[in-house]
Amino acid sequence: MKTQTPIKVRYSETDQMGVVYHANYLIWFEIGRTAFVEALGFQYHEMENEGIVSPVIHADIHFKQPIRYGQQAFVETWIENYNGVRTTYGYRIIDEEDRVAVTGTTEHVIVQKDSFRTLSLKKQFLDWHEAYSKALARVDR
Amino acid sequence: MKTQTPIKVRYSETDQMGVVYHANYLIWFEIGRTAFVEALGFQYHEMENEGIVSPVIHADIHFKQPIRYGQQAFVETWIENYNGVRTTYGYRIIDEEDRVAVTGTTEHVIVQKDSFRTLSLKKQFLDWHEAYSKALARVDR
Amino acid sequence: MKTQTPIKVRYSETDQMGVVYHANYLIWFEIGRTAFVEALGFQYHEMENEGIVSPVIHADIHFKQPIRYGQQAFVETWIENYNGVRTTYGYRIIDEEDRVAVTGTTEHVIVQKDSFRTLSLKKQFLDWHEAYSKALARVDR
Amino acid sequence: MKTQTPIKVRYSETDQMGVVYHANYLIWFEIGRTAFVEALGFQYHEMENEGIVSPVIHADIHFKQPIRYGQQAFVETWIENYNGVRTTYGYRIIDEEDRVAVTGTTEHVIVQKDSFRTLSLKKQFLDWHEAYSKALARVDR
Repeated sequence: MKTQTPIKVRYSETDQMGVVYHANYLIWFEIGRTAFVEALGFQYHEMENEGIVSPVIHADIHFKQPIRYGQQAFVETWIENYNGVRTTYGYRIIDEEDRVAVTGTTEHVIVQKDSFRTLSLKKQFLDWHEAYSKALARVDR
Repeated sequence: MKTQTPIKVRYSETDQMGVVYHANYLIWFEIGRTAFVEALGFQYHEMENEGIVSPVIHADIHFKQPIRYGQQAFVETWIENYNGVRTTYGYRIIDEEDRVAVTGTTEHVIVQKDSFRTLSLKKQFLDWHEAYSKALARVDR
Repeated sequence: MKTQTPIKVRYSETDQMGVVYHANYLIWFEIGRTAFVEALGFQYHEMENEGIVSPVIHADIHFKQPIRYGQQAFVETWIENYNGVRTTYGYRIIDEEDRVAVTGTTEHVIVQKDSFRTLSLKKQFLDWHEAYSKALARVDR
Repeated sequence: MKTQTPIKVRYSETDQMGVVYHANYLIWFEIGRTAFVEALGFQYHEMENEGIVSPVIHADIHFKQPIRYGQQAFVETWIENYNGVRTTYGYRIIDEEDRVAVTGTTEHVIVQKDSFRTLSLKKQFLDWHEAYSKALARVDR
């Protein structure tokens, strides 16, 4: 399973190099991740309502080609790895001519918002766990 | 009373116009405001520890000259108005040659974080109230 | 003439107050403005290709209600004023239940990118001028 | 050689998790990188004046502990690798109690701003090349 989410470049996302500023691609990854989670039938803010948040513990990003204002971009998102506690999402950002601009991964855990103590997704949210396990199996890269 | 806070332009704050992106000046105002509050002897995060936050309810900004990466900027901050409930801060951003780049004001209240119900600064934080009343009297513009 | 543009709150746009950080509404105004310009049949980046940019010279923003992550927002945009040189856009941001969250205006000129010398929209881009004059006449507030 | 640059958390850098939003650490890396370059006696904007920019081609970030508003942070920066064309900077962000919050690397090339064609730092900027070669030799990790 893989989602593809369109992203329209914001003027505020450019820098004086004339291209999208590199840190913004982490925000685009998050937009892709949110769409992926919603495609599975979940809402991240419902998890937060229970006092649980899902921080990034590792990110790896390859910047291959710049994206410019006025271009249309798309972020593809899938589950690269999942073991019941840690989830690694994979991403590919392409432009309107299907050229790969950025690829990367982000690895996440879930923690209690107050203490930042790591919890098990498998134990806390069994329905997410089952959906993630299935989505991992259905990745065709 | 007036504070002056140096700000070094971040590359990420520029846009493809080759100047600081306009929305960032609201962030620079906040940096000035934080320094002003600290100069009065307070810490904004201590207010938040009591479950109270201080949102902006109005902002007015005049952009007179662009600031560029590599320039040194300064934000001057003072209290423009204060009535026990609402605080209006005044700001002036200048460059290294004392040219005025941006001027503006932001008006704030304090609210309970959970409900966003407005509280009286005078009633909740008497020490802030007294310091603000004095700082307002000492503005020389 | 008025455009309405949907905006999905990004997690990165929230702050620790638990709501959208106030400076981001200037970015949302820009998203509305871009959609408005496109609805008139123009593309802002085509103006930039001719070495001309359109900085904000004044912004006025009233923050009435916070918007939170998970909510759907819309930005309505229209021309509030236009005189051949200066364009003032009006904005209204509403949530999914039609409550007004933010209102405001931004005033713009066009300048040469290199010198920041002000140009006349009427003289430089006659087709924009005519479309803006008509759009101003058709505002129903 | 290693530089240490103090960073004061901006309110705008927090998210509703109550901590610094993860993409902002890439901006902090850039602040550290700028300070490092300046410690070597160079200014990045002087490179840009010659029509040359230095995009990131790879970033790797480990998020170990959150940083919160009100805390003091420091970013340490050094050259992890340099071969005349590609420069890899290493970073370590620590809090006021010396706890490691974030570590990472970013890899850079220099390119012509117009074409994004890769150039050799060794050939284009011999003085940078020599300083970088020396700084690489003097890293003590």
